Amino acid sequence: MTKLYLEDLQPGMTFESGSHTLTAEEIKSFAALYDPQYFHLDEEAAKASLFGGLAASGWNVAAVTMRLLVDSNTIAGGLIGAGVELAWPRPTRPGDVLRVVSEVVEITPSRSRPERGMVLMRNNTFNQLNEIVQSQSVRMVVPRRPAAETEK
Amino acid sequence: MTKLYLEDLQPGMTFESGSHTLTAEEIKSFAALYDPQYFHLDEEAAKASLFGGLAASGWNVAAVTMRLLVDSNTIAGGLIGAGVELAWPRPTRPGDVLRVVSEVVEITPSRSRPERGMVLMRNNTFNQLNEIVQSQSVRMVVPRRPAAETEK
Repeated sequence: MTKLYLEDLQPGMTFESGSHTLTAEEIKSFAALYDPQYFHLDEEAAKASLFGGLAASGWNVAAVTMRLLVDSNTIAGGLIGAGVELAWPRPTRPGDVLRVVSEVVEITPSRSRPERGMVLMRNNTFNQLNEIVQSQSVRMVVPRRPAAETEK
Repeated sequence: MTKLYLEDLQPGMTFESGSHTLTAEEIKSFAALYDPQYFHLDEEAAKASLFGGLAASGWNVAAVTMRLLVDSNTIAGGLIGAGVELAWPRPTRPGDVLRVVSEVVEITPSRSRPERGMVLMRNNTFNQLNEIVQSQSVRMVVPRRPAAETEK
């Protein structure tokens, strides 16, 4: 697949990932390692929580989103985020099928580093009902096409 | 440990977590699942990357930070984030010892839901050289002390 460099990106371009089904097992095993709170670990106990039932850790949703982005990535140099804003407008439940739609929002060439620039991307993670379960804005470092390649 | 409710928190209060040493093994096994890019997976190949060596996925740092926060948490109702801003000002390397210092920044009682409020926390994750490897601002849902408990 052809990799996209800074000069290939335009505001408004969109990309879509594959999908991943988040199982109760994955929700609980991620939580056991990184977010061991009862509403991410125990279906019965979670019913009494703010979530009203087992819900994935937001960090689990963020990690799955990253995996979907990496697996479908066409941007040169890899996905290297400098800063991120995240929101989880609704819980992610066992069995939810997640996919990510990404949009290029803004492109800022670097003044001090002419070989790269910053790209602001909006990555929305949807469930199988087309509801947004995570919205993410990320500033990414993206390289320009190396001179040698341009001259080919 | 006594749990802190919304009315117990004050801007400027700080909390400190325990520590966690991030090994090369954990960096690679997290990356294999959630961020399989070569600079998170392969020491040799990573030398030629922007990081100049193996570096943890930012999502791995975020997940470890959450674990440290959960393990040291004294806030009632658990740690439930509605929105987060994250930045990774420098890479996290194999062997780095991470710990989190949290500060209450702002407290906003809910108008529509008198039994809870929003608390803005700043959670800075430090390495063993006291350098910030992740800065995080998070808006958290925090419950008020239930009336029954107040009347005791």
